[in-house]
Amino acid sequence: MSITVLASFQVKTEKVADFLAACRELTEHTMKDKGVLFYELQRNNENANLFVFVERWESQADLDAHLATAHIQKAFPIFLECCQSEPVVQVFSPVF
Amino acid sequence: MSITVLASFQVKTEKVADFLAACRELTEHTMKDKGVLFYELQRNNENANLFVFVERWESQADLDAHLATAHIQKAFPIFLECCQSEPVVQVFSPVF
Repeated sequence: MSITVLASFQVKTEKVADFLAACRELTEHTMKDKGVLFYELQRNNENANLFVFVERWESQADLDAHLATAHIQKAFPIFLECCQSEPVVQVFSPVF
Repeated sequence: MSITVLASFQVKTEKVADFLAACRELTEHTMKDKGVLFYELQRNNENANLFVFVERWESQADLDAHLATAHIQKAFPIFLECCQSEPVVQVFSPVF
């Protein structure tokens, strides 16, 4: 069963450019990962520093493999440095 | 430009069945709305009472038209009655 990930980031204003550069590189790599169905960075329409990756994976195993890749491991510390608060990652499954 | 909506609901345990029934009916109607690209209820994997509608619309105008339909107006009070706290609705736009 596919799973959906919502990963939210409240980014420091002075770090938005760095954050976006890291996200762009991460997205380019991740779109080649096994089992990725959807992986898209979104920006909140009312809070320009609030971003969310909306992700869909074929399985938990595919997500786990993604989380072990060099490209996500490279991005994690950049995300932490760019964010005002700890990123919030939530995993969901379709109901219907 | 398309927009993404994340609508989160923390549902009372005793109201989950009512909530799901309302969501099912709402989804069936909404999938016929103009401009809907994606509309799917998701359940959190660690918090079984936390749900999110992940939505994609072709435009803000299509979302606005959806919000004025009889089916969403019917669902709103049911959602409020079923939720422990106010639902959180966030609107996003793709970055890349």
